[in-house]
Amino acid sequence: MNAHYTKLMAHSRETIALSQVSELLGWDQETMMPQGAAAQRSEWMGAMEATLHARQTDPRIGEWLSALDASTELDATAKANLRLIRRSYTRNTKVSADLAVELARVTSISQGIWAQARANDDFAAFAPTLKQVLKLRREEAAALSNGGDLYDALLDDYEPGMTGAGLETLLGSLRGGLVELRDRIRGSSVSVPDLSHEFSDELQMKLANELAASFGYDYNTGRLDKAVHPFSSGSGTDTRITTRVDLANPFNCIYSTIHETGHSCYEQGINPDYLMTPIGRGVSMGVHESQSRIYENQLGRSRAFCGYLYGRMRDTFGDFGVADESSFYALVNKVGQGYIRTEADEVQYNLHILMRFDLERALISGALEVDDLEADWNERFKADFGFAVDKPSNGVLQDVHWSVGLFGYFPTYSLGNIYAGGLNEAMRAANPTLDAELAVGDTRSATRWLRENVQRFGGLYEPVDVIERATGAPVSGQPLLNYLNAKFSDIYKL
Amino acid sequence: MNAHYTKLMAHSRETIALSQVSELLGWDQETMMPQGAAAQRSEWMGAMEATLHARQTDPRIGEWLSALDASTELDATAKANLRLIRRSYTRNTKVSADLAVELARVTSISQGIWAQARANDDFAAFAPTLKQVLKLRREEAAALSNGGDLYDALLDDYEPGMTGAGLETLLGSLRGGLVELRDRIRGSSVSVPDLSHEFSDELQMKLANELAASFGYDYNTGRLDKAVHPFSSGSGTDTRITTRVDLANPFNCIYSTIHETGHSCYEQGINPDYLMTPIGRGVSMGVHESQSRIYENQLGRSRAFCGYLYGRMRDTFGDFGVADESSFYALVNKVGQGYIRTEADEVQYNLHILMRFDLERALISGALEVDDLEADWNERFKADFGFAVDKPSNGVLQDVHWSVGLFGYFPTYSLGNIYAGGLNEAMRAANPTLDAELAVGDTRSATRWLRENVQRFGGLYEPVDVIERATGAPVSGQPLLNYLNAKFSDIYKL
Repeated sequence: MNAHYTKLMAHSRETIALSQVSELLGWDQETMMPQGAAAQRSEWMGAMEATLHARQTDPRIGEWLSALDASTELDATAKANLRLIRRSYTRNTKVSADLAVELARVTSISQGIWAQARANDDFAAFAPTLKQVLKLRREEAAALSNGGDLYDALLDDYEPGMTGAGLETLLGSLRGGLVELRDRIRGSSVSVPDLSHEFSDELQMKLANELAASFGYDYNTGRLDKAVHPFSSGSGTDTRITTRVDLANPFNCIYSTIHETGHSCYEQGINPDYLMTPIGRGVSMGVHESQSRIYENQLGRSRAFCGYLYGRMRDTFGDFGVADESSFYALVNKVGQGYIRTEADEVQYNLHILMRFDLERALISGALEVDDLEADWNERFKADFGFAVDKPSNGVLQDVHWSVGLFGYFPTYSLGNIYAGGLNEAMRAANPTLDAELAVGDTRSATRWLRENVQRFGGLYEPVDVIERATGAPVSGQPLLNYLNAKFSDIYKL
Repeated sequence: MNAHYTKLMAHSRETIALSQVSELLGWDQETMMPQGAAAQRSEWMGAMEATLHARQTDPRIGEWLSALDASTELDATAKANLRLIRRSYTRNTKVSADLAVELARVTSISQGIWAQARANDDFAAFAPTLKQVLKLRREEAAALSNGGDLYDALLDDYEPGMTGAGLETLLGSLRGGLVELRDRIRGSSVSVPDLSHEFSDELQMKLANELAASFGYDYNTGRLDKAVHPFSSGSGTDTRITTRVDLANPFNCIYSTIHETGHSCYEQGINPDYLMTPIGRGVSMGVHESQSRIYENQLGRSRAFCGYLYGRMRDTFGDFGVADESSFYALVNKVGQGYIRTEADEVQYNLHILMRFDLERALISGALEVDDLEADWNERFKADFGFAVDKPSNGVLQDVHWSVGLFGYFPTYSLGNIYAGGLNEAMRAANPTLDAELAVGDTRSATRWLRENVQRFGGLYEPVDVIERATGAPVSGQPLLNYLNAKFSDIYKL
């Protein structure tokens, strides 16, 4: 192998190891850290960040990359690693250290200001800080964009190769169909009663552990713990998931677990030869979300799997007041009327994202001022959801993302759903008897298909290429719309 | 404050943060890490080690130190920090990178070879590796010693200021008294029956948590988990302890917990102004062990506290077959006849250490060859313990220390016991009613005395100075011998 490539990869490998250490610190902070250790922990994170930043902008990377020109003979794996290293080195060196430090400083403060403003339902108290964050992120985007579109420059960090214009077409294609489907559901005579039973913490966690395993999660290289906000963390042979327990609503624990299992199974499913190299991770936020969503929704919330889950819940909790599999299926997929994205059903979830995407893109382009954001949010919400926002904590202040500067991140949630729609269609075409397997809780052929067609590639291909190779078709919102229409027409007898 | 000092301390602070991260990785590895993550974890540890080594040998440290000469005006805290930074920089830069790498390589392999040899009871299989480790550590000692004593150079890493000759006098002064006391106990007509009851895991852990808290352990900056070998980890506002559970012997869990609580309370008790600075840690292995031992033995195994503990055990486990407080006290302090250091009672424990100290000092000086080590061990064991070693796993192969190159570490265990003896004498002189408090489980005035007189100083003074300031007397083995004689004469009616 080329000597420059060998040096570059050795340097990269140590950087990857350190970034994985940093990620473990994040996991520990949310699960194990004593409460009183927060200030000390933030010094640890800062020290790791400084170490990583120095390594990631090491001029030797530039020299090695220059030495590896187009004439260098490399295999596909090496080329993919080079592509990722080149992209991240270019990004890291384009942003000045001063700007990076200022961004880190401001976003670490602004999260607290956002939380306070949300608690007081006072957008005006958050607006000055949001302006500051936005200004810095626009500066960063300008440094990254080479005169191109600012939003595209930010998006590229989460979903390489995707553009704002491409997303506008793709996400925009969902809006009409989703609003129409939601309206038809609201007009339905089918009503789905809520649960009224208490589900013990211990039994919920027992079932959650069992479900993660049943979806192929490997506890030899993972573990499940509780956290305030469920997340998955890690890669390679150390991928950990978390969930939470709500005694009145076991679906919170169950579907958070299956969702995070999807994320971690993606990491566990990557070709082990890629471990500790740039391509040894999920390729983008969107593809990652496609895995968590397909495990959670297209598999976990399918009629077939719900039949199995209903039985396991009866075994675990006894009679919990739901009469049969059909009522259980309807309950798990109930379409409600709420303000909050994270609590939204499969139909309305993407409407939340579409709105955030359009608003944040307008903020970054300068077409929308922060001072007008609350009014625009409320107007758009009324248009898409059919009722008015009652207070900022249920509206523009509900999500943490913008406070920490995450512009360009929201659309990857819907992109994941769109990818999942296409993958589900292809997976079911490849295995017409899948539902019979899911009905007895057997996800093996589904997860094997996802592993073979998506997960194992890690970062070998660009995100869209991964999906299109798996589905054999261009990415489109239609499979997701078809799936939602069929599913909810059935449940709500439309 | 002097500008060079400020730069030096900023650099040191970030290094300390990174070393604390590395320590957390060690904790996680023993408590939380999925089994399959071992190889990946060793890459993380290596990457952290390389980062730390580069920082610790950064030539700028030498420049800052040179700029801070004797004429610089600094307060006592700054002087103490400088003393520790200077010592560690000098040590780190004296050993060549090649030797450090080779030592890390050999000791990481040799632990496995030792474990295998122990499993096979075959010292000859370990001897070649031990020779290699010894050779490298002798080379390291030569690099560190400036022509002085090799053993002293190694010892200095664990117990700064202490010498082999000083230890020979101090530890040697114990031997006669300990052997004599042990012989008298063997001649006693008092016999102490063992437990025959099963103690549930859950209740042992409940009691362990309660006991740690009762000794002043602050869960706001700590936590208790299970591990194969109990240890304490961390400093400042994140200090964690572990224990283990043996269903037949709850004293394993209880006294491991109290022991580790002593270590962690030392860290928690350090002046918070010292956090993230060189003096913000326990000053030496010996002083650390004095805290764990005084919590475990002079407090936790005292007649008064055992009376309280007996009641708590009856409350927790019901009748477990011990009739009264007096029998319980005798059981907790039973002097047995065994081969294994870690299972030894208070009387014989130090005989184990004295033997290892003499043997390892002879190995380092060259007076003893590895090929003669097993024979010398067995001969010395017979002389001090009165019976013969039956197999290497009960003899020369029982401890992991030498396999990983820890020469100079063993004596700090006994030094800790000697320090604890002196501290116990001073603490009881300052508070004649201490036993009345311990009898109701109240350790507050004892732990306050230790915090005020030992713990809060961190690394401000040299180890011996910390102890002598607290006791008001030169360090001596006599208080420990007096304590042991009085205690065991009482229990065994000598």
